[in-house]
Amino acid sequence: MTDDALVIFTPSGKRGRFALGTPVLTAARQLGVDLDSVCGGRGICSKCQITPGYGEFAKHGVTVEDGALSDWNEVEARYKRIRGLTEGRRLGCQAQIQGDVVIDVPPESQVHKQVIRKSATMRDIVMDPATRLLYVEVDEPDMHEPTGDFERLARALKEQWQVEGIAAELSLMRRLQPALRKGQWKITVALHKGNHDARYRILDMWPGYHEGKLLGLAIDLGSTTIAAHLCDLQDGTVLASAGVMNPQIRFGEDLMSRVSYAMMNPGGDKEMTSAVRTAINGLIQSISTEARVDPKQVYELVFVCNPVMHHLLLGIDPVELGQAPFALATSGSLSLDARDLDLAAVNHAARVYILPCIAGHVGADCAAVALSEEPNKSKDMVLIVDVGTNAELLLGNESRVLACSSPTGPAFEGAQISSGQRAAPGAIERVEINPVTKDPRFKIIGSDLWSTDPLFPAGTAITGICGSGIIEAVAEMRMAGIVDQQGLIGSPDQTGTARTVPEGRTHSYLLHDGTALGGPRIMVTQGDIRAIQLAKAALYAGARLLMDEMGVDTVDRVTLAGAFGAHISPKHAMVLGMIPDAPLDKVTSAGNAAGTGARIALCNVGSRNQIEETVQQIHKVETAIEPRFQEHFVNATAIPHATDAFPHLIGVATLPQVSFNTAGSGGEGGRRRKRG
Amino acid sequence: MTDDALVIFTPSGKRGRFALGTPVLTAARQLGVDLDSVCGGRGICSKCQITPGYGEFAKHGVTVEDGALSDWNEVEARYKRIRGLTEGRRLGCQAQIQGDVVIDVPPESQVHKQVIRKSATMRDIVMDPATRLLYVEVDEPDMHEPTGDFERLARALKEQWQVEGIAAELSLMRRLQPALRKGQWKITVALHKGNHDARYRILDMWPGYHEGKLLGLAIDLGSTTIAAHLCDLQDGTVLASAGVMNPQIRFGEDLMSRVSYAMMNPGGDKEMTSAVRTAINGLIQSISTEARVDPKQVYELVFVCNPVMHHLLLGIDPVELGQAPFALATSGSLSLDARDLDLAAVNHAARVYILPCIAGHVGADCAAVALSEEPNKSKDMVLIVDVGTNAELLLGNESRVLACSSPTGPAFEGAQISSGQRAAPGAIERVEINPVTKDPRFKIIGSDLWSTDPLFPAGTAITGICGSGIIEAVAEMRMAGIVDQQGLIGSPDQTGTARTVPEGRTHSYLLHDGTALGGPRIMVTQGDIRAIQLAKAALYAGARLLMDEMGVDTVDRVTLAGAFGAHISPKHAMVLGMIPDAPLDKVTSAGNAAGTGARIALCNVGSRNQIEETVQQIHKVETAIEPRFQEHFVNATAIPHATDAFPHLIGVATLPQVSFNTAGSGGEGGRRRKRG
Repeated sequence: MTDDALVIFTPSGKRGRFALGTPVLTAARQLGVDLDSVCGGRGICSKCQITPGYGEFAKHGVTVEDGALSDWNEVEARYKRIRGLTEGRRLGCQAQIQGDVVIDVPPESQVHKQVIRKSATMRDIVMDPATRLLYVEVDEPDMHEPTGDFERLARALKEQWQVEGIAAELSLMRRLQPALRKGQWKITVALHKGNHDARYRILDMWPGYHEGKLLGLAIDLGSTTIAAHLCDLQDGTVLASAGVMNPQIRFGEDLMSRVSYAMMNPGGDKEMTSAVRTAINGLIQSISTEARVDPKQVYELVFVCNPVMHHLLLGIDPVELGQAPFALATSGSLSLDARDLDLAAVNHAARVYILPCIAGHVGADCAAVALSEEPNKSKDMVLIVDVGTNAELLLGNESRVLACSSPTGPAFEGAQISSGQRAAPGAIERVEINPVTKDPRFKIIGSDLWSTDPLFPAGTAITGICGSGIIEAVAEMRMAGIVDQQGLIGSPDQTGTARTVPEGRTHSYLLHDGTALGGPRIMVTQGDIRAIQLAKAALYAGARLLMDEMGVDTVDRVTLAGAFGAHISPKHAMVLGMIPDAPLDKVTSAGNAAGTGARIALCNVGSRNQIEETVQQIHKVETAIEPRFQEHFVNATAIPHATDAFPHLIGVATLPQVSFNTAGSGGEGGRRRKRG
Repeated sequence: MTDDALVIFTPSGKRGRFALGTPVLTAARQLGVDLDSVCGGRGICSKCQITPGYGEFAKHGVTVEDGALSDWNEVEARYKRIRGLTEGRRLGCQAQIQGDVVIDVPPESQVHKQVIRKSATMRDIVMDPATRLLYVEVDEPDMHEPTGDFERLARALKEQWQVEGIAAELSLMRRLQPALRKGQWKITVALHKGNHDARYRILDMWPGYHEGKLLGLAIDLGSTTIAAHLCDLQDGTVLASAGVMNPQIRFGEDLMSRVSYAMMNPGGDKEMTSAVRTAINGLIQSISTEARVDPKQVYELVFVCNPVMHHLLLGIDPVELGQAPFALATSGSLSLDARDLDLAAVNHAARVYILPCIAGHVGADCAAVALSEEPNKSKDMVLIVDVGTNAELLLGNESRVLACSSPTGPAFEGAQISSGQRAAPGAIERVEINPVTKDPRFKIIGSDLWSTDPLFPAGTAITGICGSGIIEAVAEMRMAGIVDQQGLIGSPDQTGTARTVPEGRTHSYLLHDGTALGGPRIMVTQGDIRAIQLAKAALYAGARLLMDEMGVDTVDRVTLAGAFGAHISPKHAMVLGMIPDAPLDKVTSAGNAAGTGARIALCNVGSRNQIEETVQQIHKVETAIEPRFQEHFVNATAIPHATDAFPHLIGVATLPQVSFNTAGSGGEGGRRRKRG
């Protein structure tokens, strides 16, 4: 009989020999096995639960006999009695090694556990939060060794957790002495170290052992909506997701009108800053209420946003972003106190991380998309398109990544459309037009039925058409031959229908007439088509410009992110010519990739360095000064502007077989307009 | 003719060969010569003025010919025309090396200039402030290289000043874009790096070249008074010194009564914190008014204070300091924002440094004394005594330094004395008693005349007796034989005088009777003698305890600091037995050493690391738990308690030749009290 034994940990496969009597937690720490502990091995926290395996493990070449671990002890018995312990589980800090053994660390006992996301195409988040709870036992003060309580706490953290370099702001320092005495020199601290911090920072403290939640917020601050995910910083769970309208809309629908507001109205930027901060505080309150948690448990926030929102959140006048050369006040990532942003709803000591901006028009939201979708790690050439009120595009692979933004305007979000509205219950979001009868059917948000279903809600239930609805409507009108390649409704090239009705000198298409039941009459007007044409041309031109810069004519795959990705079908996007041609099965949706990037940065502090480095390597292409952008834009206004540019649409979308000339044709359709 | 030349800088003696045409400033920088520049060699700031020497320099083995420097140029001519330039001076950034040359760097052109202090016994301060002004030229933004303005500023600071790692708080970030544009991409920044900071911090900024003052405050926050020195952070000049009463006196005269107030009154600590912060803001306003400067130019503050004041300044409840083991909340040095302490009078971005505390009873003020007086660098054994309301003592040499505090109470400051008052005009501060007639003469604060002078102000001009006055009075009474060794006035041992008048069961000595002219009758009562005896016994016992711990019977020299050092004569202190015996010429005054230590830490950032290390090495002796302290205290109540303990007094002070027994005699005098 030897006086040491072989210990093999699964799933890591790490192994080593340890003296008999070594606690499993100690063995795990020495091997660098990812086994959690808050109390430091004192049998209090139960985070270090493990499952010993018995019998023969051929794969590992070891047979584990009964008695390989020490007997169930008093601490474990008490823990099981009071708080329960799953059958077969042991506390790693209590069970001691007595013989060769295979020990499984279940996912919930791993610090760096993976948060499995719903879709298989999305990458998992490995938990590595900047803030964690640590329990320590602090030496009592001694007149003969006159260090301060804080210095003794720092020493305990160093000795018990190998955590060196501690700071605490004054308000925490004030609470230290009563907390230590109340906890009889045992204390739990919430310790934070951001990716740029030289020292750890105590964010909160509790007498004795404390088992509270540490919460974090990933906030996607858009021009139109503010969306937040409330996350558990220990296991990465999303406890609630919620959104509110950005109240800055009253100062201007799009970014440039907000910049104009700031330029024209002294103090206008401060008004907008105050409005958005108030809205964020409100959102934090409501999302916390929804999740039934105290917002004071929120210790970290990560923000992603476009450059104008970035500056307005920070209280920096965005005026420079409204004119060339679109200079950001600061482009780097920022680590701040939440109270610097007046975010009084969260914990007083909460920290904020804001992702870096890529350029004056390509913001931290685009950086978050890059963090989530990782074009810089892609083997094939990927185009990532994130459509909000502005569109941001990333093109690249592991060799090189380019980025640009394109001023699509708010048409894709239903604004500037005759019957347009934001995506809300009652808005038409899906459209199909029968190519023979030219009659439409549609779905509204809030109902799964097609409008042709007898049970479909009637009358006032239908309120308007949202961004995805108008895009599908225009694409379907094109496929049904109601609109020609130049975007004209009812041109001589097109087959007529009773639904194309003259309005002044142009025609409109009647999508729905609810007037008999007091509902609206929803038309797709020539103006609507033009708005969509301009928006999609801007988007396409941006993508083409990146492809020119990259020196490629095609892309291997397209990722749709943002509202776009969530609600618009790839087929319709391509029929409309919003995105370059690609095999349809290579066009996928990433959902709210910016929000996901924010969550990654929230849950994994190492990812912050990663995206900061990536952003340095992303080459920015400025659409505003690039003559080719205008050229591509003009060429891209037709729908689709060239059938041979979209070979992958053949057999998928039935385009009317009408020949048309594509070269420099943008304005031509307008001149060939049929007189009513 | 060679294409390089020898350049010798004085006073440093640094030398090197440089290509002809090299500007003197460039040569100085390459050799590490201490030559100032704010504008970085652009001929704007004139900080780099140098004086070339011509002729033969035998000492350096070089002959400097006319033409060794390039001709006076346009920039220098314009500078001289507009702002003036001393004859013989050149601008180091403009004058180029054309031949072998000796160049003198005058003190005002040195960054690390020495601030010469008034007394030769005091060490000079070498300027090395944490905050300095730097002028930079920043690249304009470029759409093709989309970095933020802040990042380009950081790059310029790195390229032009080798300053790496910059941070700025949001309020500064907000001002950056307008400032850069107003200054046409030239900007001056006030850059700060504390001794614990990982990054430089921008405290302020101005468009273009800016030549403002950077001011700092060294504040000695005492229990009774708050004293401040307002300093120029560039040249170390003290622009003004001022003091105010600590308003916390209304909560308790001494430290322990303030701790009691905090214990007995919920929120009492917050009241005291608020009171002292308000007083400091007021002091900052008044000292700035006196110096005719804007307090918003104050960018740095250094505080020294005892532990109770330290905690109350920080807003930490001092309750733990009122009971064993006297645990500090934090003992380390602190770097804070001034606004963390509500110091709204100074610049919004101003930084605060607070020296470390040595122990629960030995504070940052004692650390400041150690920084100023450097016992740890002394070859001989030095005792440093700093008397305020509490006394702090340091004993040691370069091998070892000990520290303790001793609860002298406020008697040395004139409190708890029958006719006592604070040191203010009208207070008796000097006393002499004729040993034959037993008649006194005295001086009051505000007059240089003795009271026996016919021109001495009479009547109500005399208001009371201050700390130094009562100490001299008691010592003189002892020397004149009015008081015996046990401290009894008019005991059978003593020679009688009409001025010793019975009061109840004891006697008092009439120092001054101004009643005829409406003034006070100033007596030294038996109670006054007892108060001084207790205070001086505590002080002496502390010193003896340190000597015991050090294993020495004598000290080589004594340094008197604080109010003590400034106003009390060494002879009287020794007659009274306040300090151990030492040659009188080895008893010197260091003035306000704590205040000086604060000034050193303010003007020289490197000294902060130095005192933090020193404090780690100082061994703290706790008087409160040391039985020998009580023993020494009891033995030390007599005046002086043993003539053989003070051989250096022989021939200096004429003590009455009365034998007395010193062993364990403290209470005896009381028992032999003469009944009135």
